[in-house]
Amino acid sequence: MTGDLLIRSVRPWPHTAGGPETDVLCQGGSIAAINSDIPAPDGVPVVDGRGGVLLPAFADAHAHLDSTRLGLPFREHTAGPGLAGLIENDRANWRSAEKGVTDRATYTLGRTIAAGATLVRSHAQVDTDSGLERLEGVLAAKEAHAARATVQVVAFPQCGILRDPGTEDLLDQALRAGADLVGGIDPAGYDRDPVRHLDIVFGLAERHQRGVDVHLHDSGELGAFEIELICERTAALGMAGRVTISHAFALSTVDSDRQVALIDLLAANDIAVTTVAGGRANPLPLRRLRRAGVRIGLGQDGIRDYWSPYGNGDMLDRAWQLAYRNGFRADDEIEMCVDIATRGGAHALGVDRHRMLEGDSADLVVVPGDSVAAAVMDREVRTLVVRAGTLVAANGELYA
Amino acid sequence: MTGDLLIRSVRPWPHTAGGPETDVLCQGGSIAAINSDIPAPDGVPVVDGRGGVLLPAFADAHAHLDSTRLGLPFREHTAGPGLAGLIENDRANWRSAEKGVTDRATYTLGRTIAAGATLVRSHAQVDTDSGLERLEGVLAAKEAHAARATVQVVAFPQCGILRDPGTEDLLDQALRAGADLVGGIDPAGYDRDPVRHLDIVFGLAERHQRGVDVHLHDSGELGAFEIELICERTAALGMAGRVTISHAFALSTVDSDRQVALIDLLAANDIAVTTVAGGRANPLPLRRLRRAGVRIGLGQDGIRDYWSPYGNGDMLDRAWQLAYRNGFRADDEIEMCVDIATRGGAHALGVDRHRMLEGDSADLVVVPGDSVAAAVMDREVRTLVVRAGTLVAANGELYA
Repeated sequence: MTGDLLIRSVRPWPHTAGGPETDVLCQGGSIAAINSDIPAPDGVPVVDGRGGVLLPAFADAHAHLDSTRLGLPFREHTAGPGLAGLIENDRANWRSAEKGVTDRATYTLGRTIAAGATLVRSHAQVDTDSGLERLEGVLAAKEAHAARATVQVVAFPQCGILRDPGTEDLLDQALRAGADLVGGIDPAGYDRDPVRHLDIVFGLAERHQRGVDVHLHDSGELGAFEIELICERTAALGMAGRVTISHAFALSTVDSDRQVALIDLLAANDIAVTTVAGGRANPLPLRRLRRAGVRIGLGQDGIRDYWSPYGNGDMLDRAWQLAYRNGFRADDEIEMCVDIATRGGAHALGVDRHRMLEGDSADLVVVPGDSVAAAVMDREVRTLVVRAGTLVAANGELYA
Repeated sequence: MTGDLLIRSVRPWPHTAGGPETDVLCQGGSIAAINSDIPAPDGVPVVDGRGGVLLPAFADAHAHLDSTRLGLPFREHTAGPGLAGLIENDRANWRSAEKGVTDRATYTLGRTIAAGATLVRSHAQVDTDSGLERLEGVLAAKEAHAARATVQVVAFPQCGILRDPGTEDLLDQALRAGADLVGGIDPAGYDRDPVRHLDIVFGLAERHQRGVDVHLHDSGELGAFEIELICERTAALGMAGRVTISHAFALSTVDSDRQVALIDLLAANDIAVTTVAGGRANPLPLRRLRRAGVRIGLGQDGIRDYWSPYGNGDMLDRAWQLAYRNGFRADDEIEMCVDIATRGGAHALGVDRHRMLEGDSADLVVVPGDSVAAAVMDREVRTLVVRAGTLVAANGELYA
């Protein structure tokens, strides 16, 4: 039966080297049993975890699959300064890629799955230059990998809504064409009118009954004000649990008291936060957010594109970055980063059955390592990737 | 003849994909010619660079080979808070390692060479607990790899000099036993008396005619004051060009005017700075330092030890960290990080003929990649590592 699988010889988190190896039985796409020496039911395929660490599959909570150039010849980074310079650089160059959006997004999504992610939220740029071409490419990549991963697609107004007239109508079309959420971008700092911008975004979300995911790089009090505006609209429309703020640099650029107040506001409205573990920006207050009950996810962001040369499709590598950037050394701190990259990130995306408990969806990854922290440090090729009880990748390559 | 080698098919920095492949002839340990289609002289071994990027070999300007546990079972991180917690954790555990210092340092130095470094400065802890045992282990590792890398060893008073009475005498013994430089550590913040601490360090350096390399984590005005003390002693003893400050967090934690004044002071005394591209501390002002003529090197720091689970022997990975942590995206910024990890770092260690020019020492590494920036992003296994015209590693493994 589809979704039946017996995984032998794995050490489920939190067991470490010397801890017991066990088996995992998947039935009908869910985890049926985690136990030692489970007999193989008739006709159920058996795979060998080779003693690796068993984790929930990774959840990439913030990717830009539409812009990736992974696998293509490396191009020099040519952007001018600031967000506007990055946006213009992309607009000037994206059409000249050696392959179209569908091929590029499909390739990078495949690499992401092979590295252990079975849940991905990708933004797809919607603007008057590219229309719905990028969205359609990401939707095609989602379809191509439908058996291997769940993909949520955000109709993302990268070039602004008010700055790029016509975008509101395109977002409306995008939501009818299959986008799962509506995005926004720096309503004040970039689009220059936070109230109008957010009213359009939340208006579209309400009309189409979809979630919201807003890019918010604006920092300090400006970004904090925008977080308040987002919370107000979330409450007014009864959208608690369906709104995400990406980056949310304001949280790490206000003082400690203000930070606590903002975190409480996010928690009260059940607004999720995603980070990409950037190298330069101050890290988010991960512990405070989690203690307050705010859902946090980790994402790849752009993956070798006109925005940035970084990124490789590997969420374990990204979890390493999150730990490194926060200066985490203790195993429990590193494991918190793995949680944010796996079950925590899934929760941020509204997916609950991704906790590696019996009865949950059998979305799992096996990675060599003496312990979870060691696996993060070593970042070895993934032994197995399982999605809903089906083997989708092994030894770093997609399983045909 | 020793040090004769013909390297075929490489693209010397700064050539990128599509740029010409060329050959490099090494004679007597030096670069004799960089040109296309060099005929192989009789009896000279020929190796194939497979079209990879040719860089100067990496220079690890700050390692702790004496504490590494790379290659051994991963151990949970058990340190308490702060520098003292880290020092005590190491003291409580280092003797229980499955292998002795010599074996551990030799293994990690081998991994470092196989990843492309042929020049390494390693600190070796000298204190009243371990005596000279760690120093002797690092000296043995240096000897084991003498044909493959140049290693400078710092007699490093990790536990303080004044806090750990008897250490001054041990440092004196260490310098007689073969240490190349004398170290110091947070003369104020840790050892509690900056003047006495530095007078001892510089006194030992003068007596033995060796260089100085001081760990300085102290930040803000305290660290800035200590930089001034180091500069005063460097000038008084005529030691310009022979002093290094490691970490130097003060430079990135004072205001901009004070930073410029400190940089000018370092330049005037030709004091080098090394960084380890830490995840949490503010990055050093790399461009300002280099524009002022201050030599800067990059190091691995601890490599999976009782201090930190990070580190893997790979200086290309560390160069990636330096770029990532600084938010560098442009190719020339990423290449600056490679320069700091190679010829710039060698210069910081007082080694001049490491520039990949004809006549320079043939210390070279070949790495796959479309360009230098692409090579940093991909961090693929090193194709070839050459030290003084001798092949010392290929495809990530030491060459027997």
